[in-house]
Amino acid sequence: MLLHPLPWPDGKRLAASITFDIDADSLIRNARPEDGHLRLAPVSMGRYGPTVAVPRILDTYQRLGLRQTFFMPGWVMEAYPATVEAILKGGHEIGHHSWRHEDPMGHSDAREAELFHRALDVHVRMTGRRPRGYRAPVYNATPGIIARLIDEGFVYDSSLMADEMPYLLKAPQGELIELPPHWGTDDWPPFAHFEEIGYLMPVRGPSDGLRAFFQEYEAARAAGGFWMPVLHPFLTGRLARWAVMEQWLEETLRQGDAWFAPLEEIAAHANANRDMLRTDTIGEPE
Amino acid sequence: MLLHPLPWPDGKRLAASITFDIDADSLIRNARPEDGHLRLAPVSMGRYGPTVAVPRILDTYQRLGLRQTFFMPGWVMEAYPATVEAILKGGHEIGHHSWRHEDPMGHSDAREAELFHRALDVHVRMTGRRPRGYRAPVYNATPGIIARLIDEGFVYDSSLMADEMPYLLKAPQGELIELPPHWGTDDWPPFAHFEEIGYLMPVRGPSDGLRAFFQEYEAARAAGGFWMPVLHPFLTGRLARWAVMEQWLEETLRQGDAWFAPLEEIAAHANANRDMLRTDTIGEPE
Amino acid sequence: MLLHPLPWPDGKRLAASITFDIDADSLIRNARPEDGHLRLAPVSMGRYGPTVAVPRILDTYQRLGLRQTFFMPGWVMEAYPATVEAILKGGHEIGHHSWRHEDPMGHSDAREAELFHRALDVHVRMTGRRPRGYRAPVYNATPGIIARLIDEGFVYDSSLMADEMPYLLKAPQGELIELPPHWGTDDWPPFAHFEEIGYLMPVRGPSDGLRAFFQEYEAARAAGGFWMPVLHPFLTGRLARWAVMEQWLEETLRQGDAWFAPLEEIAAHANANRDMLRTDTIGEPE
Amino acid sequence: MLLHPLPWPDGKRLAASITFDIDADSLIRNARPEDGHLRLAPVSMGRYGPTVAVPRILDTYQRLGLRQTFFMPGWVMEAYPATVEAILKGGHEIGHHSWRHEDPMGHSDAREAELFHRALDVHVRMTGRRPRGYRAPVYNATPGIIARLIDEGFVYDSSLMADEMPYLLKAPQGELIELPPHWGTDDWPPFAHFEEIGYLMPVRGPSDGLRAFFQEYEAARAAGGFWMPVLHPFLTGRLARWAVMEQWLEETLRQGDAWFAPLEEIAAHANANRDMLRTDTIGEPE
Repeated sequence: MLLHPLPWPDGKRLAASITFDIDADSLIRNARPEDGHLRLAPVSMGRYGPTVAVPRILDTYQRLGLRQTFFMPGWVMEAYPATVEAILKGGHEIGHHSWRHEDPMGHSDAREAELFHRALDVHVRMTGRRPRGYRAPVYNATPGIIARLIDEGFVYDSSLMADEMPYLLKAPQGELIELPPHWGTDDWPPFAHFEEIGYLMPVRGPSDGLRAFFQEYEAARAAGGFWMPVLHPFLTGRLARWAVMEQWLEETLRQGDAWFAPLEEIAAHANANRDMLRTDTIGEPE
Repeated sequence: MLLHPLPWPDGKRLAASITFDIDADSLIRNARPEDGHLRLAPVSMGRYGPTVAVPRILDTYQRLGLRQTFFMPGWVMEAYPATVEAILKGGHEIGHHSWRHEDPMGHSDAREAELFHRALDVHVRMTGRRPRGYRAPVYNATPGIIARLIDEGFVYDSSLMADEMPYLLKAPQGELIELPPHWGTDDWPPFAHFEEIGYLMPVRGPSDGLRAFFQEYEAARAAGGFWMPVLHPFLTGRLARWAVMEQWLEETLRQGDAWFAPLEEIAAHANANRDMLRTDTIGEPE
Repeated sequence: MLLHPLPWPDGKRLAASITFDIDADSLIRNARPEDGHLRLAPVSMGRYGPTVAVPRILDTYQRLGLRQTFFMPGWVMEAYPATVEAILKGGHEIGHHSWRHEDPMGHSDAREAELFHRALDVHVRMTGRRPRGYRAPVYNATPGIIARLIDEGFVYDSSLMADEMPYLLKAPQGELIELPPHWGTDDWPPFAHFEEIGYLMPVRGPSDGLRAFFQEYEAARAAGGFWMPVLHPFLTGRLARWAVMEQWLEETLRQGDAWFAPLEEIAAHANANRDMLRTDTIGEPE
Repeated sequence: MLLHPLPWPDGKRLAASITFDIDADSLIRNARPEDGHLRLAPVSMGRYGPTVAVPRILDTYQRLGLRQTFFMPGWVMEAYPATVEAILKGGHEIGHHSWRHEDPMGHSDAREAELFHRALDVHVRMTGRRPRGYRAPVYNATPGIIARLIDEGFVYDSSLMADEMPYLLKAPQGELIELPPHWGTDDWPPFAHFEEIGYLMPVRGPSDGLRAFFQEYEAARAAGGFWMPVLHPFLTGRLARWAVMEQWLEETLRQGDAWFAPLEEIAAHANANRDMLRTDTIGEPE
């Protein structure tokens, strides 16, 4: 049961969008500013994302005719320009994902604003346009960040979890479409093993780990909902895992039930049906 | 084998009660009093419970003719009055669940008493009656809390684990019925991923995570026992997980083996069969 | 392949011994000496072991004609005398398991010796004999403990992991039979969820968690080895888990391949075949 | 899809190499230098590796006609000379794996160099040759280590994760072949439970834990890639786990698709096809 169902374009039964956060080696560099560059294993683990996994993912998308969404920290965009170029060439969206995956709770909002704008400048310079959407590192959005997104004309955020359908996020400064993630469709719990940042999950096998996401898809399909896994190239883009995902994607596209689209299009659709959306007000109980 | 079996009403083979603790955003606010309100992801993750999951759960219960039990901190009741109203309208029980999910080991018993009464006042004001039952946050009941429950005329507690059947909890101040939870039927281990409170489980898929609870049900059925999962709307009330639970509930109700009832009715039944219960004395080895 | 195979009595294919460590509420009392008695949930979780689970386990053993081994801290024996009596009545062995589950690395060996003897006195007084075997809390045996076991005439230890077959443990003071546990057949990893002692496992379903132990049995059977799960009544003695274990036991006993015996009998058998055993010298690389 | 495919010898579809890191009791001795020798359980758990598991593994390899690679810290080689001898006798490769599994981030590079050479001397003395390959403890390679490997004429490293195919690691001092591990084919996540070093995984059953590695193999086979699990004798060499692995190996070898070889041969093959390899530059974004 969905409290706030939406009709989807072309009579599709559900909306689906695979999102990848390309954090690359920003994670270790941010977590260990003093010596992260010396820690070659996590650096290389991160580098796998833009250099090996993203080309593989883009190849699949191209073959299947999919356009999807990638979130990239500004620092990563500058460090991996070929990755940015390849994504854009495929017609995909690149969303704002902070400067270098920093935790906004770790510094002042003024500092956060400075880093936000530094990344925004990179987006404009490298993609030729301003991003429509934002996802906070580890979902850590603050009221200051939401206010800034509204002030800067962003259409959507994708960090908060108050619903499973797109919803309207109301703040004193205005409104945003929220395209909500949740931990049941994030690939860190099944696959991440990253001692240097204190995150040691018991890595699942490829099918084992991805099965949960596919069951979530089925539930969204049955309810007419919205399915948006939050994946990371260095995790789900690994050879064996992506093989599972790719095969599933082929079968799923063959069924034709879902409207697969970049988040910006789903946000635009939600925006066009604003009166049907649930509203959540920032930081205030209803 | 049950050491202290009980006959159940209407010749049912087992007693069953699905309990939901609606903690909402009290968890992050309590864990991070200084900046919890700025941490919008965990706040929104919590808000999902009363605003999205509880309506879904209530809808299922209504369709299936079930009345069950919800535990709510007083602070959550005040913050989400529509949720309280909807639960009461469905004929369900609301139990006492602290003021704001605070850990009683973190302050004096006098402070705990003050918060207990603050929550009790909210219950009386919003539900029109005194709650019959109590569940401690994270099961953290103390001798002081048990004493207070007895003094305040509570019929049952649902925080301690010395048995799998309802049992009699004896304290210097008197007695209570204990309706015991345990970690094998709590949904935090399979589903919770909550870095801000230091609790990072490797999130299971919906069927994978719930299978354990169903197997526990089968064992309770075979033994003539008592099955009481401790669930949380922001976890098991998620779309895909609840779809699994709902389907299982439909099949299980069709079989008709279980007496599904709110905890207060099960406590009353146990109370009426007091002499058949096991007795456990607080804090003292036998 | 076993490097040091042993023939088993009566032409049995393998030796098997289910061992239960009955720690009860010693765990929380030892971990939190200042306020453990106020933490009623972990106290009750522990009390479940001797008061609910052990009677269930003994009932199964009696029905199936099994005699097995239980390890109990002296403090637990004194706190739960009826449990001791019931175990002895069933013809089972009770091994030494420290005074109150204290970590020997946390105090001097002199203090450890004092606690060891305090527990030993309880054993003699309550069981009428000296225990033949010892298992260290959390397997934490030290050279001092091994020396003491030898000095006190113990036949075996069951804390070290240098082999999967019974082996000879050589120390400057003499020798002991080692009956080795390992983490693949310990029920803490699949089932324990115990925040107060910093041990939070993602609790498995009953069949899911026990399957590993059964597969270990099959491997021991195929190799002619030794299978010795280390279980805890408050974990594997829970209703649904024990139902799985009991059914498996019935089937396994029907096959008749295993010599199920208390550890003291297996140690005696190993001792009688001393020259076939592998030798490991304490603390010294070979 | 592989960005940098390689043809494999004899028309084989993939290259495969099972690598074992024989850390033995170096782990606990290194983690707890002051009292590790008193902690007999982790010492014995480690000793299981060279004394019980390695003979079993070598037996399987001999029966199946496999030559593979083992990495050993110098300290372990000195402590377990019979293990070194048995490995060499089987025609296997022994790679450099630090002095005593120390973390290079915990001391100066000068100290690291000293320990590196101490281990190198042991290799030369005990194996009669200089090792061709290196794997850093917990993959913790630094730029200083990579520089040293190049200076010392090593052919390959096996610690970094920027690709799933062998690749060329470029540093200011020259180049190395990198044979990359990753956390999806490392046996610590499924099997290690080691409280003394703060690493507590929820131990998987034998088949459950190994299934992921086999699925990784299938993906490598389908893509024509490279499969290199990183195993540890005290974990995957346990009786029940190795039984699963052995049976899988037999079936896999019967299929005959893979070129099973020691890493040094795979590195030599990659070296001979240098121009087909991807290049990654140390510590520098592309």
